[in-house]
Amino acid sequence: MRLLFLGDVVGRVGRQVVLQHLPRLREAWALDFVVVNGENAAGGFGITEAIHEEFLEAGADAVTLGNHSFDQREALVFIERAPRLIRPANYPPGTPGRGAALIEARNGAQVLVVNMMGRVFMDPLDDPFAAIDRELDAAPLGMVADAVIVDFHAETTSEKQAFGHWCDGRASLVIGTHTHVPTSDHRILPGGTAFMTDVGMCGSYEGVIGMDKEEPLRRFTRRIGASRFEPATGEGTLSGLAVETDGTGHAVRVAPVRLGGVLEDVVPAFW
Amino acid sequence: MRLLFLGDVVGRVGRQVVLQHLPRLREAWALDFVVVNGENAAGGFGITEAIHEEFLEAGADAVTLGNHSFDQREALVFIERAPRLIRPANYPPGTPGRGAALIEARNGAQVLVVNMMGRVFMDPLDDPFAAIDRELDAAPLGMVADAVIVDFHAETTSEKQAFGHWCDGRASLVIGTHTHVPTSDHRILPGGTAFMTDVGMCGSYEGVIGMDKEEPLRRFTRRIGASRFEPATGEGTLSGLAVETDGTGHAVRVAPVRLGGVLEDVVPAFW
Amino acid sequence: MRLLFLGDVVGRVGRQVVLQHLPRLREAWALDFVVVNGENAAGGFGITEAIHEEFLEAGADAVTLGNHSFDQREALVFIERAPRLIRPANYPPGTPGRGAALIEARNGAQVLVVNMMGRVFMDPLDDPFAAIDRELDAAPLGMVADAVIVDFHAETTSEKQAFGHWCDGRASLVIGTHTHVPTSDHRILPGGTAFMTDVGMCGSYEGVIGMDKEEPLRRFTRRIGASRFEPATGEGTLSGLAVETDGTGHAVRVAPVRLGGVLEDVVPAFW
Amino acid sequence: MRLLFLGDVVGRVGRQVVLQHLPRLREAWALDFVVVNGENAAGGFGITEAIHEEFLEAGADAVTLGNHSFDQREALVFIERAPRLIRPANYPPGTPGRGAALIEARNGAQVLVVNMMGRVFMDPLDDPFAAIDRELDAAPLGMVADAVIVDFHAETTSEKQAFGHWCDGRASLVIGTHTHVPTSDHRILPGGTAFMTDVGMCGSYEGVIGMDKEEPLRRFTRRIGASRFEPATGEGTLSGLAVETDGTGHAVRVAPVRLGGVLEDVVPAFW
Ligand SMILES: [Fe+2]
Ligand SMILES: [Fe+2]
Ligand SMILES: [Fe+2]
Ligand SMILES: [Fe+2]
Ligand SMILES: [Fe+2]
Ligand SMILES: [Fe+2]
Ligand SMILES: [Fe+2]
Ligand SMILES: [Fe+2]
Repeated sequence: MRLLFLGDVVGRVGRQVVLQHLPRLREAWALDFVVVNGENAAGGFGITEAIHEEFLEAGADAVTLGNHSFDQREALVFIERAPRLIRPANYPPGTPGRGAALIEARNGAQVLVVNMMGRVFMDPLDDPFAAIDRELDAAPLGMVADAVIVDFHAETTSEKQAFGHWCDGRASLVIGTHTHVPTSDHRILPGGTAFMTDVGMCGSYEGVIGMDKEEPLRRFTRRIGASRFEPATGEGTLSGLAVETDGTGHAVRVAPVRLGGVLEDVVPAFW
Repeated sequence: MRLLFLGDVVGRVGRQVVLQHLPRLREAWALDFVVVNGENAAGGFGITEAIHEEFLEAGADAVTLGNHSFDQREALVFIERAPRLIRPANYPPGTPGRGAALIEARNGAQVLVVNMMGRVFMDPLDDPFAAIDRELDAAPLGMVADAVIVDFHAETTSEKQAFGHWCDGRASLVIGTHTHVPTSDHRILPGGTAFMTDVGMCGSYEGVIGMDKEEPLRRFTRRIGASRFEPATGEGTLSGLAVETDGTGHAVRVAPVRLGGVLEDVVPAFW
Repeated sequence: MRLLFLGDVVGRVGRQVVLQHLPRLREAWALDFVVVNGENAAGGFGITEAIHEEFLEAGADAVTLGNHSFDQREALVFIERAPRLIRPANYPPGTPGRGAALIEARNGAQVLVVNMMGRVFMDPLDDPFAAIDRELDAAPLGMVADAVIVDFHAETTSEKQAFGHWCDGRASLVIGTHTHVPTSDHRILPGGTAFMTDVGMCGSYEGVIGMDKEEPLRRFTRRIGASRFEPATGEGTLSGLAVETDGTGHAVRVAPVRLGGVLEDVVPAFW
Repeated sequence: MRLLFLGDVVGRVGRQVVLQHLPRLREAWALDFVVVNGENAAGGFGITEAIHEEFLEAGADAVTLGNHSFDQREALVFIERAPRLIRPANYPPGTPGRGAALIEARNGAQVLVVNMMGRVFMDPLDDPFAAIDRELDAAPLGMVADAVIVDFHAETTSEKQAFGHWCDGRASLVIGTHTHVPTSDHRILPGGTAFMTDVGMCGSYEGVIGMDKEEPLRRFTRRIGASRFEPATGEGTLSGLAVETDGTGHAVRVAPVRLGGVLEDVVPAFW
């Protein structure tokens, strides 16, 4: 299968770059399954129902979230009728929505999508290592699921890499989100799981992690804010990871995708 | 000038990859100035005098540090007689060593090297934004310094990117260290400062941020450690950034360097 | 001199209990100098000009602040014309207002009031230990200042106790604020400085640190908030510390003050 | 029933003050059940089997722990044969020992003792609010348990007070530990649960939270340590809380206990 994961979409610039590229890439690369992290899609904070539907129409099969899942309060409601919208699985029991879903790809394959949050320098949710075991046991790769995509939304490189090793062999892809900067360490772990510490964001790289740089700079230097954070303007960059899996659901090829904006363009050589 | 910065050297594997490649690259690329971050060189924690000298002999002009600066207690002593060894400048007044130094390159140019630590999710040192202003004012780029290299040792992508913008135009290079994963966002900021959120480490990428994965995994899953952290074995990767500056000391070309190990090899196309 | 320090005033309940008791106590105990921490006076977050004046009219000689200093934006402006309003001294240079002031008591004595913030689990401000040295050197106890009152606004008991020892002999009183719970360890340190890890708050102890308990409980159990924090209702408690100093400005007597609400009433036996 | 809870015993000074007072108080006050927090009993870090037995012989019916539970590695082993030694219940499944135990008092009553850790500014363990529900449901007060004592080992006053309210009516006592400073807010919550934000420590209050003050001061001011933390010397203080329950297991009287050292002596008036 051909999988594409797109990192945290930040504000209008991020949404535009997804809408601009995704329909074409879906076609050109004959993608089987696309996941988009949408936690920052609505002005940098959370997601609305309209934006969620826009992503699905543009070619996303699933949308994942993170610590900003419910910044737009409407998400607490519409997530219940949005079976392809996945919030972190280690929120407390009773949290609206779902943390994992088995979703049918257009080719009929079953893809397990899991969203999970790290705990180091993050909100103290339930143990993600124990929680991923439960999710992976419920829909084992190669038995129930034809592919397994895990979005691990976490701050530190250490927790993310440990999580990748923990899942190695049991997922097609473990991909980090949240830091809004793509890392250069995409690879296939020994057990066959594609891994990348952070996929980076879809948005403008001219600011500070996708936001206009003035307010962050003010807070860092004066310790007192003056206004809200606003998404950075400037040309947007699409940032993602392309993964090809074999019949067992394990990764056989992995390559970054970056298109537009101030970063260097890169696309998979194998598609 | 041709500058090379190599990220956090982790343990024996990291040192070996530096000793293996640096003398040759220095020659082949006609490098004018090389900086190596050595905070994890001694078994993953700190640096010894012997290792510091090994780096200088292999072709480093300066060695920077970070939160592990003084994990090897001898560093508190020998740093006083090691003018090319730079610890974070925002440690309290009275800390042994220096946080910045104007160092003569082999071509006679004066290069200001500054090491600074971020504060988000790190030790609460003095304000790095105020401290860098003092250092940059003391040896302005293009007036006193022919090149200015700032190693910003920090955890979060937001503080690092804000710091890059803060210094833009006043440094040849602001480069992040500490997370041990190279980012893909190397670029030249509008004012002429080369920037990369994190340069990654020199060491084995088969573990967890350069350390053997068993103990980190144990602590993440059981919350109780069983032994000390040990550097990961496996083939090492050299990870760095190449920067070319013009007569004003601003960057005109920038490209990542990664050689060996499980990451994809990449070298500058322009040298 | 007879000094009274009242802890973080929280919302309307806190203000009422101060206005109810302070004028009477000022008279009855022949107080020479009164300091009130007002960082939570306006609905739990910050302070307004009207509230600040209310405190002065009720008998406060100085008002200190903390991490909520500027939650009410008007404080950034009126603090400049409020010489008795003191914000943490270790905010960056250029922050509106002042971190210390030498204020004339009604008996003509000069009292140095300093507000300082800790850094452990708090915002990364400048080093409070270095900053307090500068303040204490500028108006030494027994030479320039007849009394020195230091409000150390900090989270951890360790940083607060270390700060007390650091100042011992150089201040009449080092008193902790911020946790909103009075501690039972008021005492006079060997050098003559009265100390208490935290003075507690003026407000309702029926909630969670002065706020209505519903929203904190929701966030702790569901990790997703539903509304803003509101001050707790219920009968208020005045919480403070009484200190008597000798001719050298050192403390000779110290006793807690707690009046009203769900805590046990206690007043100094020596006045 | 007459219950006594003694806070974190720190080092030799702390142990001595427990051994000195506890046998006598047990007799004089006709205590039915005594719990001692022993997480810092062995040189400030953890507990040994010999010390644990010493506490039982001195009159403790149960010993609770905290974030230092396993600093002495032998505790990972002997805790399995020590049914009265309770470590935090929200450690991951598989952790040696137990997080709760129903222990028979000398008068034949059944007492549920639970140890739980908070998560704010602490290690990210499982949700303590969900975990305490499970423990309290398994041995309900007034049905299975004649008394329920919950040691909530946490950093912040907000999490501790929220936890007290959460358990109100379902426990005889919810008592905070970990900060090593007694608070003055002991009281009986509306539902009948005795509560105190922190019970303080048994040890010397002349240092910094029970440790000699030199090393903490060095680290706060220089940011670089020079030696290990050592318990403070000086006269010790016994610090605890006395609670009397009625036939339903709810608290009817509560009073602090502090004996010796630099704090003011206080004992219950009702025994
Ligand atoms: Fe995020
Ligand atoms: Fe994000
Ligand atoms: Fe490092
Ligand atoms: Fe580091
Ligand atoms: Fe406060
Ligand atoms: Fe505060
Ligand atoms: Fe503790
Ligand atoms: Fe403790």
